[in-house]
Amino acid sequence: MIKSMVIEYDGSTYSGWQRQTQYRSVQGTIEKLLSKLYNCPVTIDGSGRTDAKVHSIGQVASFQCDGRFTPEKLKYVLNNLLPEDIFITSVDNRDEGFHARFSVKSKKYLYKINMNAHRSVFNRKYAYQLQKQLDIEKMIEASKYFLGEHDFTTYRAQGSSNVNPVREIYDIEFSVNQDELSICYWGNGFLYKMVRIMTGTLLDVGLGKIQPEMVAEIIISKDRSLAKKTAPAEGLYLLEVLYR
Amino acid sequence: MIKSMVIEYDGSTYSGWQRQTQYRSVQGTIEKLLSKLYNCPVTIDGSGRTDAKVHSIGQVASFQCDGRFTPEKLKYVLNNLLPEDIFITSVDNRDEGFHARFSVKSKKYLYKINMNAHRSVFNRKYAYQLQKQLDIEKMIEASKYFLGEHDFTTYRAQGSSNVNPVREIYDIEFSVNQDELSICYWGNGFLYKMVRIMTGTLLDVGLGKIQPEMVAEIIISKDRSLAKKTAPAEGLYLLEVLYR
Repeated sequence: MIKSMVIEYDGSTYSGWQRQTQYRSVQGTIEKLLSKLYNCPVTIDGSGRTDAKVHSIGQVASFQCDGRFTPEKLKYVLNNLLPEDIFITSVDNRDEGFHARFSVKSKKYLYKINMNAHRSVFNRKYAYQLQKQLDIEKMIEASKYFLGEHDFTTYRAQGSSNVNPVREIYDIEFSVNQDELSICYWGNGFLYKMVRIMTGTLLDVGLGKIQPEMVAEIIISKDRSLAKKTAPAEGLYLLEVLYR
Repeated sequence: MIKSMVIEYDGSTYSGWQRQTQYRSVQGTIEKLLSKLYNCPVTIDGSGRTDAKVHSIGQVASFQCDGRFTPEKLKYVLNNLLPEDIFITSVDNRDEGFHARFSVKSKKYLYKINMNAHRSVFNRKYAYQLQKQLDIEKMIEASKYFLGEHDFTTYRAQGSSNVNPVREIYDIEFSVNQDELSICYWGNGFLYKMVRIMTGTLLDVGLGKIQPEMVAEIIISKDRSLAKKTAPAEGLYLLEVLYR
């Protein structure tokens, strides 16, 4: 049978989602525990990778297993045995054919930025410590150019193996809470480091380095060097994965 | 001349405030840097100690130094050189006779508790993960018994060197934000681990283990074994130090 789970994790001390032989990964940590519980090798498929230091509120993974644990029981056991920087929010039985990566319909990412001149000692691993005020109205204006279907070659990091660079962005939402700016991106998919590069461009707009209209040109240019900055990993959260 | 500074720190990876030869302390970290900057041994006096894993939003320290740095310059230099889990909120020149510990008039501590069944991976070092709902009305009722001047022998941890166990509590405030309960304690002083032991008793009330009225008896008893629990360090913050 196939089960899926929603996973929250603090990415600070992991080499990222993906299993690695030499480094501590989120996938590897969960697989190791599941293999013990099921007494056989269990591999899990995530909805996608997250890089080192990137966090998750809604990562989804699926795996093949027998029926010895109910979803509730498995959730309980996992949360008691996993390290405290990983938490299983829910476990579900799925129909045959469900696959955490191939069945994805859309994804949401969140990016958090501390705009206060006061560096936050408590939030330093959970938000980008920009420590500068931003012109959010201009950033909202700029973000409109990302909406819809585009060839996002400009916003793809080198080393990306994705063949088709066309993605559709449905919505980009801004919210501010006590000098912490949150930007929520919703799209049918994102290229490697795309959210962090888009955020880098929006920050340049917010800091007055480029005008909002420039974003249209940068996208069309397909010139990666024009989207100069990649916002740091610690501000990024995989927020939600939506399925058919 | 005498300078004072307000210090915010994430206590997670420190052995506590107090300088120690073998372990990494907040005081030791700041003194080491100040001694380099002033090119002579500088010692600082904190308003009091904080234990390992306890955080600070408003710790105050004072020290003797020459006038080579203005307060603004010193704040800037320190924040550029200190590790990212310590931040100097302000630096001030003080009158002769000012001493961060001896001049204290009152102090405020904050204690944070996660009541949601969902363990927080992001907040695990910054709030006690109780993961149970609390009867806050009853806790408020119980907290009234702490107000005023009392002999707090019951609420003093063993190993405490304080001679006089009488302290006056001015106010205890409760606030809830999305299943996170914050309790703010304001008093003329607190004995060793007093805030954490008081919080342990209030949690017992909130969980229905004891009735609010019991608190009066526990204080009068001067029997440490009646105030059973000491709430864990990670939920505690030194919030503010007030001076004459």
